[in-house]
Amino acid sequence: MSKNKKLRIIPLGGLGEVGKNMTVYEYGKDILIVDTGIMFPENDMLGIDYIIPDFNYLLDKADRVVGIVITHGHEDHIGAIRHVLDQIPAPVYATPLTRGLIEAKLARNNALGKVSLNTVEAGQSIQLGAFQVELFHVCHSIPDAVGLGITTPAGLLVHMSDFKFDHTPVDGWPTDYAKLAELSNRGVDLLLSDSTNSERPGWTPSEMVIGPALDNVFAAAPGRIIVASFASLISRMQQVADATVRHKRKLAFAGISMVDNAKIARKLGYLEIPEETLVPLEQALNMDSKQVVLMCTGSQGEPSSIIGRLSAGTNRQFDLKEGDTVVLSSHPIPGNEENVSRAINRMLRRGADVIYDALAPIHVSGHASQEEQKLLLNMVKPKNFIPIHGELRMLKRHAFLAEQVGVPAENILVVENGEVVELADGKLSKGERIPGGYVFVDGQSIGDIDHGVMREREKLARSGIFLIDLNVDKYSGRLLDEPEILTRGFLSPDDAEKLLPEVRHRIMDIVNGGGLNAEKDIASAVKSFLYNETKRRPMVFVTLSKA
Amino acid sequence: MSKNKKLRIIPLGGLGEVGKNMTVYEYGKDILIVDTGIMFPENDMLGIDYIIPDFNYLLDKADRVVGIVITHGHEDHIGAIRHVLDQIPAPVYATPLTRGLIEAKLARNNALGKVSLNTVEAGQSIQLGAFQVELFHVCHSIPDAVGLGITTPAGLLVHMSDFKFDHTPVDGWPTDYAKLAELSNRGVDLLLSDSTNSERPGWTPSEMVIGPALDNVFAAAPGRIIVASFASLISRMQQVADATVRHKRKLAFAGISMVDNAKIARKLGYLEIPEETLVPLEQALNMDSKQVVLMCTGSQGEPSSIIGRLSAGTNRQFDLKEGDTVVLSSHPIPGNEENVSRAINRMLRRGADVIYDALAPIHVSGHASQEEQKLLLNMVKPKNFIPIHGELRMLKRHAFLAEQVGVPAENILVVENGEVVELADGKLSKGERIPGGYVFVDGQSIGDIDHGVMREREKLARSGIFLIDLNVDKYSGRLLDEPEILTRGFLSPDDAEKLLPEVRHRIMDIVNGGGLNAEKDIASAVKSFLYNETKRRPMVFVTLSKA
Repeated sequence: MSKNKKLRIIPLGGLGEVGKNMTVYEYGKDILIVDTGIMFPENDMLGIDYIIPDFNYLLDKADRVVGIVITHGHEDHIGAIRHVLDQIPAPVYATPLTRGLIEAKLARNNALGKVSLNTVEAGQSIQLGAFQVELFHVCHSIPDAVGLGITTPAGLLVHMSDFKFDHTPVDGWPTDYAKLAELSNRGVDLLLSDSTNSERPGWTPSEMVIGPALDNVFAAAPGRIIVASFASLISRMQQVADATVRHKRKLAFAGISMVDNAKIARKLGYLEIPEETLVPLEQALNMDSKQVVLMCTGSQGEPSSIIGRLSAGTNRQFDLKEGDTVVLSSHPIPGNEENVSRAINRMLRRGADVIYDALAPIHVSGHASQEEQKLLLNMVKPKNFIPIHGELRMLKRHAFLAEQVGVPAENILVVENGEVVELADGKLSKGERIPGGYVFVDGQSIGDIDHGVMREREKLARSGIFLIDLNVDKYSGRLLDEPEILTRGFLSPDDAEKLLPEVRHRIMDIVNGGGLNAEKDIASAVKSFLYNETKRRPMVFVTLSKA
Repeated sequence: MSKNKKLRIIPLGGLGEVGKNMTVYEYGKDILIVDTGIMFPENDMLGIDYIIPDFNYLLDKADRVVGIVITHGHEDHIGAIRHVLDQIPAPVYATPLTRGLIEAKLARNNALGKVSLNTVEAGQSIQLGAFQVELFHVCHSIPDAVGLGITTPAGLLVHMSDFKFDHTPVDGWPTDYAKLAELSNRGVDLLLSDSTNSERPGWTPSEMVIGPALDNVFAAAPGRIIVASFASLISRMQQVADATVRHKRKLAFAGISMVDNAKIARKLGYLEIPEETLVPLEQALNMDSKQVVLMCTGSQGEPSSIIGRLSAGTNRQFDLKEGDTVVLSSHPIPGNEENVSRAINRMLRRGADVIYDALAPIHVSGHASQEEQKLLLNMVKPKNFIPIHGELRMLKRHAFLAEQVGVPAENILVVENGEVVELADGKLSKGERIPGGYVFVDGQSIGDIDHGVMREREKLARSGIFLIDLNVDKYSGRLLDEPEILTRGFLSPDDAEKLLPEVRHRIMDIVNGGGLNAEKDIASAVKSFLYNETKRRPMVFVTLSKA
């Protein structure tokens, strides 16, 4: 580590979750990007499809980006790759499975053309400009995830993206502790690490606990078994496939992304399912119920997912039936609790048995809990520490844990997205603040939807709209015909029948009385009338034509 | 128990939660109502203030209602009393604190006039028509809660509303086990019991654990302490007051409902705070920070609550400051997780320390967990069982627990709101189904908002609105001036600048070209143009005037 060399670290995107979807490292003129993910909108972000990090800061520096390294294949780490590559055509580096998932994603969007995708195995090292990047294996709920050792002239850092210390992972490939020890021996100047579970005491259970739990469910199921999870939870697919083999059933995947991902993972050797176990969905639907396992998406109860549609009775290919056992193999993401609960209740109502995480250990977290976070800190013995991947509350907690294991408080920095951190002479300091927010994606155009538009949507949704169309004689100022009124989201048909004639009379009185003739004045008179009658405030619009 | 006597049991209201807010018992012509509560809307019920049970079934039977018995003073059990009494002017029976809270609620709404409120102490018995109702004390997170023993000619039933078996409750008054044993000895034909925590293994911790947790927080706090909870959590008020005394601070309540409820509870002897400990808020705000404890509402992070406003920096009377310690003494209600998390992050950002239930046991549930539910079942030894107070998933779980302790499966009925259950000859059976839904309250009028209106609000919120006002020459069919366009919740100002001129041209081409002249046709042409350009579908409205 030489003097006067400065590394800049910039966490980006991800709602409140710091550096979750994208982290930028800048040394001299070289820029390294780690991960390019998306987030899903919160409940009050009405009509938004998904959210990507605001990377405007990089746009005029695109030619300085020496590479994009992706740590694993989950949506919150690869989902925005297309949007980033559109603007920053830098080479992408990832392990085989991650690269396969990225490739499929780009292909689905016809965006594979000019992209440079490069495979790097865990354990390998690549030099990208000023950055020497060593990829090492870590356990997570998807195979082939990596942590990064990054050597720069300003020092050595360890970037721990999503991880857990699972000693009995599904693929039998534990975290590369030896590499962590080696990095530690070289002297780590800065550790950045996953804070997702920093409020959770103890140790996250191994993925292994799911096998026996699935066995219990499979043994008791009187008919079809339908397991719902995320399409990118490849490890869970393996566990369900293994249980299917043990219980002598056949397995079919439902849903494009699930089928796609299973195909890629099998092709690359990350998912092992005997040929005779796997059957197409069509075939499974015609088999004896007791022989069938279906695996699909929708474990978050999203209304448009297969589970959402099954629970509502609107799925096209097949329906839920009495005797089905549905396994929701995931935990509700905060904000989805109501959707999940609704889906569970509806499926129970349809006569299915539903197994969810409150009833059996059919899901475990993919993230390290407090004891694992402390173990990592003690193994790496970093001089400095920045908690990443979490909301402020989790980062603060992770910082507290780091202090507990002996990292000096002054060597820990809690920052938020867009807050630049500088590492120089082995010391951390805060730099300037750049825009570090997020960008809404709704439909085809990105970022069209700003916070002003969101506030308008909220207002529309709160009490609906009330439109009044008036034709006025340009000489007398009197109405040429009855006001036309159109309302949405404000009144039930019954109430409209009662209220609207009265409103029409009011408007006629007002306009013909000559008191008010501007659209604005009429609107505000109608607003107060409606408020008095209903104690609600719809958005009122008046269009007035003079003829 | 005589033959051929039939009791009808009808759980009502409460979103998916069965019988949570209201249960109706009907014997012969006599009707008994237990509880009249409200529910808070789910995230996708846009603009709704609160929800009350649909009790239309009772409207033409109002004169047959012999009484309304309220089990305790929480909003989900008393909140709809005004709406019910409006239509059903029956006498109300409650224990002193519950009655006091109801009285204050009615007084705030000027609805106290013709109401018959009657105080019944726990341990007393009242005869209401065919129903002999024995009230007995149960522990919950508010003092003076009761369970009911109801003797009818069709048999003896036990109605366990919200309860827990707390052996060291804040008020030193444990559940009346002797009464439960006595009822059991008499032979209980039917038990109805709280299922809220039926997915939670073990035993709910005693309220006692909160004292030491508060002591830790109080001892470490360098400045003001702000404790947030529900206004009706009287027991929590007592605990905060006790900690205040122990740590030689002064306590002030903030927020009308909190101040009101504290006053009533103190007057009735359910809340003991030394005179010299309690100070008005004004005074507390001018005292040395280290002497002050404030208690307020907003523990669910609701944007309009004191905590919501403090976190956003928009509270009127006081601001959060560096060195404040905020204690959120509650658990997020499903659906509120995002609000709570946002409030925590914002308060941390303002330099306050925030203690919430993931960090310290500063909240415990007021509801029985599985072992307590099983203990109740074993104590009461009911012939029949109906799980109430919970969504279908919890009811099913509670039914499973009842089977485990030996209630025969055929004697357990899981029903939903509006499903009538009949008890005759000691046997349960399902009767007819009546409307058992819920009614939206938005503004002043109740039930004006139906599901159609809600769907419209959802549509408005998803992509906004696009209004087009056209003036057309009635002879030539050509536009007299440029189309006027108004849009909300659809485009950012930047995009509007780009897109709107183009839309205007399109419309002029269409109309002047003579191809389309009906509002509907123009709207649908504009819709597809907008979708092509943005992949979004705002609601499009066209008003067309001919002159």
